[in-house]
Amino acid sequence: MTDTEARGRRGRGGGGAARRAERSAVSFETAKYIERNIPNLEILNEEALQIIEANAETILEEIGVNFPDNPAALQRWRDAGAQVDGERVRIPKGLARELCKTAPSEYTQHARNPERNVVVGGRNLVLAPVYGPPFVRDAAGGRRYATLSDFQKFVKLAYMSKWLHHSGGTVCEPTDIPVNKRHLDMLYAHMTLSDKPFMGSVTEPSRAQDSVDMCGVLFGDDFVQQNTVMTSLININSPMTFDDVMMGALEVYAQNNQACIISPFIVGGAMAPVSVMGTLTQVLAEVLAGIAYSQLCRKGAPVIFGAFVTSIDMNSGAPTFGTPEAAHITYGAGQLARRMGLPFRSAGSFCGSKLPDAQAAYETSNSLNMGLLSGVNFMLHACGWLEGGLVSSFEKFVMDADQLGTLHHLAKGVQIDENAQAMDAIREVGPGGHYLGCAHTQANFKSAFWKSDLLDYKPFETWQDEGARDTQALATVRVEKMLNDYQQPPIDPAIVEALDAFVAKRKAAEPDSFM
Amino acid sequence: MTDTEARGRRGRGGGGAARRAERSAVSFETAKYIERNIPNLEILNEEALQIIEANAETILEEIGVNFPDNPAALQRWRDAGAQVDGERVRIPKGLARELCKTAPSEYTQHARNPERNVVVGGRNLVLAPVYGPPFVRDAAGGRRYATLSDFQKFVKLAYMSKWLHHSGGTVCEPTDIPVNKRHLDMLYAHMTLSDKPFMGSVTEPSRAQDSVDMCGVLFGDDFVQQNTVMTSLININSPMTFDDVMMGALEVYAQNNQACIISPFIVGGAMAPVSVMGTLTQVLAEVLAGIAYSQLCRKGAPVIFGAFVTSIDMNSGAPTFGTPEAAHITYGAGQLARRMGLPFRSAGSFCGSKLPDAQAAYETSNSLNMGLLSGVNFMLHACGWLEGGLVSSFEKFVMDADQLGTLHHLAKGVQIDENAQAMDAIREVGPGGHYLGCAHTQANFKSAFWKSDLLDYKPFETWQDEGARDTQALATVRVEKMLNDYQQPPIDPAIVEALDAFVAKRKAAEPDSFM
Repeated sequence: MTDTEARGRRGRGGGGAARRAERSAVSFETAKYIERNIPNLEILNEEALQIIEANAETILEEIGVNFPDNPAALQRWRDAGAQVDGERVRIPKGLARELCKTAPSEYTQHARNPERNVVVGGRNLVLAPVYGPPFVRDAAGGRRYATLSDFQKFVKLAYMSKWLHHSGGTVCEPTDIPVNKRHLDMLYAHMTLSDKPFMGSVTEPSRAQDSVDMCGVLFGDDFVQQNTVMTSLININSPMTFDDVMMGALEVYAQNNQACIISPFIVGGAMAPVSVMGTLTQVLAEVLAGIAYSQLCRKGAPVIFGAFVTSIDMNSGAPTFGTPEAAHITYGAGQLARRMGLPFRSAGSFCGSKLPDAQAAYETSNSLNMGLLSGVNFMLHACGWLEGGLVSSFEKFVMDADQLGTLHHLAKGVQIDENAQAMDAIREVGPGGHYLGCAHTQANFKSAFWKSDLLDYKPFETWQDEGARDTQALATVRVEKMLNDYQQPPIDPAIVEALDAFVAKRKAAEPDSFM
Repeated sequence: MTDTEARGRRGRGGGGAARRAERSAVSFETAKYIERNIPNLEILNEEALQIIEANAETILEEIGVNFPDNPAALQRWRDAGAQVDGERVRIPKGLARELCKTAPSEYTQHARNPERNVVVGGRNLVLAPVYGPPFVRDAAGGRRYATLSDFQKFVKLAYMSKWLHHSGGTVCEPTDIPVNKRHLDMLYAHMTLSDKPFMGSVTEPSRAQDSVDMCGVLFGDDFVQQNTVMTSLININSPMTFDDVMMGALEVYAQNNQACIISPFIVGGAMAPVSVMGTLTQVLAEVLAGIAYSQLCRKGAPVIFGAFVTSIDMNSGAPTFGTPEAAHITYGAGQLARRMGLPFRSAGSFCGSKLPDAQAAYETSNSLNMGLLSGVNFMLHACGWLEGGLVSSFEKFVMDADQLGTLHHLAKGVQIDENAQAMDAIREVGPGGHYLGCAHTQANFKSAFWKSDLLDYKPFETWQDEGARDTQALATVRVEKMLNDYQQPPIDPAIVEALDAFVAKRKAAEPDSFM
């Protein structure tokens, strides 16, 4: 069954009204997820990989991992053959890796617009925006707590961003909404303001269930049970602790056939050894245990081998980004994930800078380039991250999102056909000539080069006359224009009504909590 | 004969006074040139490489290259078996490649401080600063024509920059000095204000000869004839034109055993076809002809396979930097250079931005990372480039120079010994602990992570209290500090006197010219 066929059968979302609305709407171009036609960079040799794999098994068997406050998880592990002492789970060598084998090597995450479906795994790269910051920043308003209104703007910007394939999850924390209810408003925004795929809530198992239920409203319950419509972020509390809230959310998603990123969250030197090999070993042990557990919850549940890794400034204890050591770890983790045949998540628009300035861009470019070449399949935080993840930046969002175009073009690799060889052009122009007007250039220039939608290439005098704007100032203008140009993608009003009802009912069911 | 032995024999520079001065001087750390312990990224397959190589031979045989206003060059080509018609040289298939075989696969460029010698080729990467801009910019003074005073400041900054191995050449154009004399002041600055290796003049053959002669004063004439003490930049006037001034300088350097970068200068779509394959084919044809010619001037003369490549904004005609197409070309050119067994020059701190802002940093990081992974052996413009090469930026110089540390650390690759595996640390800390205080961290943290000397990792509140400075503001402070801390490396006063006399004599020999 093709994606389009699946889409046609999925109930309310595929109705005639929606299709008619779709045809008449303004269409905003979104690039297809990246299909790499260039090699990955493999920095670890076979010896190093085997050492890591053997040491990870030793960790699991001899040291073990903790599953605190989760008797059901402990029972699952006991039944699978692990040795359980208190909350500690020791996994005999080979068992976790064997359990991981039922996880699919790739999966399709469906969007309500089937053209936006993404295939996660293989040689693909799916790009999703920043996740988690409690603050936002823009040039006019400075740094401030994020609100639902900010959240909605980021969802709109992601929808309008050509090189973003995914709407993400907590693009910022809507701190003006009660903690126990904001997941409803966030999901509602992703579902109604965008037609790209999105992520579910993980902050309580019940919120994961709400996410599944709201997807049931959007896609139809049957469709959700038979297809993956969310990819959600399950962080491991490194070192080697799988807390009950995150595991509870994982259990809900796995049991409902929804995808999770199983991701050690590592600031090197704090949550993992200060060495690359040591960190990779711990990462692999944690991922093996986490993914094995997902398969104990439901064999075949789609999962991603995650690795959030940064280094640390050992003087101040501050996390640092775009660093060479984080790159080594990410390259190595990519190799380990490929050896397991699993999709890989890492990298992003990471930076420590407080402003969308040169520091931010150096750090981000280092990480984005490394993400492409390390074989990442799902890149969360691909745009908009600022200040070590404390801030979602409006300007940086569109700056990074523009740069994501370079990854698309890099990944295309090199055409080698006769037209690309251009021997006729070289003959036509000859020594001392120029190519600007030749037939080959005329025929090919439109698609030859990646073109920024943001950066300034104007002559100095023109640039000066226009106000000598830096990148942030150009980005401010672009943010405004994108929000002004935004048009909501068509959606069946009956679905919106049902979502409204669901959200209202769930909000009424418990008192507000800001804890 | 080792470098140190050679150094001991070379006459005035090795005298007792100089050695005593050296011991008592403040020492500024310079990292050794990069020796890669990570693989290159190879984006072209064997088929693509063979097509390019075959097509390049076709270009040389059927279309040919121009050597205008250079009867001696035409005679050399005729003698070597090429077909010469007017200024056009058609080179039978295989001949240029055969001639290139006498070029060395690597060479040592000597510095007057032998600790600063660099080995160009193999898996090494030597980093040199920006070359050529007529303007400078800093935050306080804005954009203005460069002067000799600016030039001297950049030489001092390069000397003080830990990750720069090379003092470069025309770090900016000292436009206040007559065109026909500024090479003397530039060389004098490199020779006396720094002890890192440097480049010679190429703007007239006579100025190349002056460069050789001044090196004779600095190193001793015999030493210069027996060793390479300069690496100079010979641009090819693409497409396929080898102008007589550049070739004249190449002739002087080759005949004196001095190294040259033979470098097509290509804005894709203008000086080469708008396709990656077409550009690579032309680049290879040009480099084959240029390097073959260097070997006709002197068999065994050290040369570098150069490739300056950018793409173009086809709307405005402006060159663009840090783009994916430039990356494709550079990766491919690196493969072609390695197949010829020649050192490779490309990449740099390229950017189109007018300011050292986020655009500049994105573009630069894209290019620096690509330069490392494409196997570049000599990276000119590794720091300080701004506005498409029109401007040398003081702030961007130190910003980029700081980032060059990431390349050093990336290139180190991953240690895999027992200490790096850190199994003891993982056992010691266990699930739920942290690594900050453990024995392994204490023993390893100092050298574990690259540390920026510039970027800000402070908490938000501290950063705000300190003035909420962006990267440029931090860099302004660093430029000032480096120039204040600068101390001239020791040099034998007799050599300085002899250099003074040489410069004075040559300046008196002809009237000033600003043309």
